[in-house]
Amino acid sequence: MRDIFDAELAQLGEDLVAMSARVERAITQAGIALLSADVTLAEAVIADDLGIDAMERDLDERCVLLLAQQQPVATDLRIVVSALRMSASLERMGDLARHVAQVARGRYPRHAVPQSLSGTFAEMHDAAVRVARRTTTLLENRDIALASSIESDDDLLDELHEDTFTALLGGAWVGNPQETVDVTLLGRYYERFGDHAVSVARRVTYLVTGAHAAETPTTA
Amino acid sequence: MRDIFDAELAQLGEDLVAMSARVERAITQAGIALLSADVTLAEAVIADDLGIDAMERDLDERCVLLLAQQQPVATDLRIVVSALRMSASLERMGDLARHVAQVARGRYPRHAVPQSLSGTFAEMHDAAVRVARRTTTLLENRDIALASSIESDDDLLDELHEDTFTALLGGAWVGNPQETVDVTLLGRYYERFGDHAVSVARRVTYLVTGAHAAETPTTA
Repeated sequence: MRDIFDAELAQLGEDLVAMSARVERAITQAGIALLSADVTLAEAVIADDLGIDAMERDLDERCVLLLAQQQPVATDLRIVVSALRMSASLERMGDLARHVAQVARGRYPRHAVPQSLSGTFAEMHDAAVRVARRTTTLLENRDIALASSIESDDDLLDELHEDTFTALLGGAWVGNPQETVDVTLLGRYYERFGDHAVSVARRVTYLVTGAHAAETPTTA
Repeated sequence: MRDIFDAELAQLGEDLVAMSARVERAITQAGIALLSADVTLAEAVIADDLGIDAMERDLDERCVLLLAQQQPVATDLRIVVSALRMSASLERMGDLARHVAQVARGRYPRHAVPQSLSGTFAEMHDAAVRVARRTTTLLENRDIALASSIESDDDLLDELHEDTFTALLGGAWVGNPQETVDVTLLGRYYERFGDHAVSVARRVTYLVTGAHAAETPTTA
């Protein structure tokens, strides 16, 4: 019985890793699509989000079955409940990648990000890709040192998000309303991406150490 | 044993109703604060969000304890897992109310919403308040007829969100970048509020009817 349960828990872990890897690909491709105005890549990200959503549903069904059939307690129970929550965070990260891709597609053949902010968004993209990659690795190897680097990159994403507001509101902004709207939403998507990754990282940390990290201050 | 379990499930239901009622108050007050530039009310909403977050944590801990101690299966298990998910949606709705209040506070003593869009945001506020009230009532009485009116108001929120883009991008917009940013974010907060309420409504419907409603198409 315990063997079966361990195998099922291991499978759950592998599913989370696979889902995270797919989200990592989505955010990577969405950022490239955004920065290079690549509409084909944007379309691919948008289409693939349905697959990420399906992974979430499968994973959740598996968790519910596991709860029903194995009736886990203590740490095992926390692992299953955490998996339910982490899959929800990963699904939202997939949605955010899709939103970035939708903005890229909507402005094609133009670039959605104005020249003056392309450096800022290139940095956001790099930070988001690092966050996504480390989230996958953290789920894979439970090396909680990665959690703190995810938190650092989340802080960086917050700063870069602030930079976009400074650019928009500093008085020197010459963008049209469409550019203002796009920068506002894109900045928020990247910032939220970091928040969700931190949420996953804290859950893994909690499972490994048994200690709740300070609650994430949810930002706008 | 069953009696205790039924009492605990009933308590869980009551906790969700209480949490939803508090979110309903938050969205109501946040909208009033926004539309009337009432900074005191905005501060109250922002402060109260910590209480909503605490309710989510308590509710989740109770769910995990219930899973551990009662080992529910079948419908009972679905109820507990749904409660975990609904509390997460309600918590996000509370966050969104706080975000609206933060925008109101940030622009005080000015109005965050420009005159030309005050009618649109008054309609969004009304729809959001109806959605919040019906979500509370639905959790209370499980009258799934309410779910369809929540879906209708969510559609209305989507349309009003589109109206804000039309206003911003139609060529006649004369707002400054701060106003463009505020309208962009506020529109999104209200639109997301509807999405989360629909998610709660579909979970209740599923528990009552046993049939999954079509998946929510997640919008930007």
